[in-house]
Amino acid sequence: MSVVTLEKCRENIRKQLDNVVDFWLKYSLDRVHGGFFTCIGKDGKIYDELKYVWLQGRQVWMYCRLYRTMDRFHKPEILEAATAGGAFLRKFARVSSSSGQWKCAFCLTRDGKALKVQRTIFSECFYIMAMDELSRLTGDKDMQLEAEQMMEQLIYWVQVDPSGLGRPQLPGEVPINSLSVPMMLMCLVQQLTEGRGQEVAQKYKELGNWCVQQILQHIQRAGTAILENVSVDGSELPGCQGRLQNPGHALEAGWFLMLYGAQSGDKEIHRTAIRNFVELPYQYGWDKEHGGLFYFLDVDGHCPTQLEWSMKLWWPHCEALVAFLMAYSHTRKPELLEIFSEVYQYTFSHFPDAENGEWFGYLTQEGKVALDFKGGPFKGFFHVPRCLYMCERILDDLLENKD
Amino acid sequence: MSVVTLEKCRENIRKQLDNVVDFWLKYSLDRVHGGFFTCIGKDGKIYDELKYVWLQGRQVWMYCRLYRTMDRFHKPEILEAATAGGAFLRKFARVSSSSGQWKCAFCLTRDGKALKVQRTIFSECFYIMAMDELSRLTGDKDMQLEAEQMMEQLIYWVQVDPSGLGRPQLPGEVPINSLSVPMMLMCLVQQLTEGRGQEVAQKYKELGNWCVQQILQHIQRAGTAILENVSVDGSELPGCQGRLQNPGHALEAGWFLMLYGAQSGDKEIHRTAIRNFVELPYQYGWDKEHGGLFYFLDVDGHCPTQLEWSMKLWWPHCEALVAFLMAYSHTRKPELLEIFSEVYQYTFSHFPDAENGEWFGYLTQEGKVALDFKGGPFKGFFHVPRCLYMCERILDDLLENKD
Repeated sequence: MSVVTLEKCRENIRKQLDNVVDFWLKYSLDRVHGGFFTCIGKDGKIYDELKYVWLQGRQVWMYCRLYRTMDRFHKPEILEAATAGGAFLRKFARVSSSSGQWKCAFCLTRDGKALKVQRTIFSECFYIMAMDELSRLTGDKDMQLEAEQMMEQLIYWVQVDPSGLGRPQLPGEVPINSLSVPMMLMCLVQQLTEGRGQEVAQKYKELGNWCVQQILQHIQRAGTAILENVSVDGSELPGCQGRLQNPGHALEAGWFLMLYGAQSGDKEIHRTAIRNFVELPYQYGWDKEHGGLFYFLDVDGHCPTQLEWSMKLWWPHCEALVAFLMAYSHTRKPELLEIFSEVYQYTFSHFPDAENGEWFGYLTQEGKVALDFKGGPFKGFFHVPRCLYMCERILDDLLENKD
Repeated sequence: MSVVTLEKCRENIRKQLDNVVDFWLKYSLDRVHGGFFTCIGKDGKIYDELKYVWLQGRQVWMYCRLYRTMDRFHKPEILEAATAGGAFLRKFARVSSSSGQWKCAFCLTRDGKALKVQRTIFSECFYIMAMDELSRLTGDKDMQLEAEQMMEQLIYWVQVDPSGLGRPQLPGEVPINSLSVPMMLMCLVQQLTEGRGQEVAQKYKELGNWCVQQILQHIQRAGTAILENVSVDGSELPGCQGRLQNPGHALEAGWFLMLYGAQSGDKEIHRTAIRNFVELPYQYGWDKEHGGLFYFLDVDGHCPTQLEWSMKLWWPHCEALVAFLMAYSHTRKPELLEIFSEVYQYTFSHFPDAENGEWFGYLTQEGKVALDFKGGPFKGFFHVPRCLYMCERILDDLLENKD
């Protein structure tokens, strides 16, 4: 890719980001009950009014981040959307139950009544991301404190005792290290500490290091594979669970680790991030026949049991774009830009909907749109705009420093 | 279809049934720990040793039924497989927990330790089916009693208080009538009462009638749709959940209802079964472009949110074969035989694996094999052999009474 091509690429990414922001501002705000609709059809029509807490938190975070760090989004309607979403979340997300006052629902009715609670930590993770980022706009110290307090609860569930999550301990269960958990905690450490000064940085330093060690345990088979689930002492687990690979997750962990390596000055971690969590998942996860990243794979080549294993989802492609562009910008190795270019071409020729805006999320293995909605229970205003936002910023830096 | 064609059809179905029985006897028996492996690759290789209780119970039931009612399967190895599977289930399936002594695990380790418990009734349903059917072979009265006692617990969870299932009641939750629940209970009523005499029949008569009424509530939109989830008073629910259609489930409920109508002499129910639960789901569920039955649909034509909605699964085709052949044999209407023939041709040209035996379970919308294993967490020795067994028996009757 030449400088001219990178300029064009940035141009396209800027337009896409504007388009996606417009789409969600236009269709997703619930002006009656607050919060966001996220089940949005291909043409913007709301096909379900349920409010998924993961997606509410992510949308608040994204609006705040855009408002706070990109001039052209520093607009009253973005601020209003962020604060209205934050207020809804703060009012309704938490469920008071025996599992403790910090447990958040997974899904709410339109008017905020809890409908489903997951026995995992992820609703809480996105709640924390939203509250911390929003507190940076509003200067609300209580909100920042609330995010940190919920973080304490999360750490307790993950490191000390998970029973508050509500899942009974069963005799056949073996504790596992699932990649998503240290990844999310690491992301939260970066969120909570960014620009907060030494005291906060110090508070989460040990946790950050622990997350890195937990993530590195997923490098298995003499460095030739990233496995999604390993034992807590870092060895391979038996069966499908142990052999599962999720290239999109590995790539996402890759750019989180790269950021950690760059910020901490740990060059070895930085190299490992690129080699094992960026290049490697692309090598085994890219479909040589039809292009695109598989959703799930089995390291021994068995057929995964997830029915959607061979589908091409938008978010692994978003993570791959960020990971390869960041890796290139940190190293300037042309082969990384080549792969970015391949992922870029696949992504932009398959996912964006030129007719109605935003992106499709779910393609068949062959690249045909399989589910045509723009938002659903797991697709909100997050992976697409975060990817475009990250790529635009990286491209700005790259093009500014062009030699 | 002429008599000659029906003869050929029976011939093929007999061969398929023999092939499928051989496949599972050859590969699935765990001679070390008891019970059955069910994660079996395309060539018979075990790719995971977990034991799913739904599938353990169903496999015991199927072996017993074949042994008890079909001469060519009245063989010691079938009896041994059934009793060994039953012993494993009886020893390990139940979890002692606060949810009560009758709760069964969903998934066990190879040596029988509980690994996962679902907060639903289905593991228990298949446990009851297995125990009742096995008690018919062994004459074990305790086992029959155990099945009936667990049935009492199930009825209590469904009709009185579901809290023993372990799911906390949440303020946004509305109780729903999900088609699978009355369908399964109705199947169990037929199982527990068949040939047991007047006293047992009387005991479950009211429950049987209740199940029928609950199933009929799923006829919605002036008789033009079967919806998978309705409110407990039989009205349509909002959102995706309320609009969901599962043609395979409707067809399965169809032949359960047909049997009920035939046995009770209720001609109106019998007509409704064929019109609303057999013909109708075929009309909206059959893919006019590529053939085969969709897995999920949205009654208003929105895209379902289930990633696998457009895939063609083996089991809805199994249910359709039984439903249409039974409907034809009860009515002799040629149009029903025509549809049976269409489903038959699609099914037998797509699902059976001529090379390694048994059937593939999961195809893309276009009919390509998407997951190539023969057994998995939800595909065991059940839908295929039950369908072949039912069809062979119906064809025997049809060909015996040919006019």
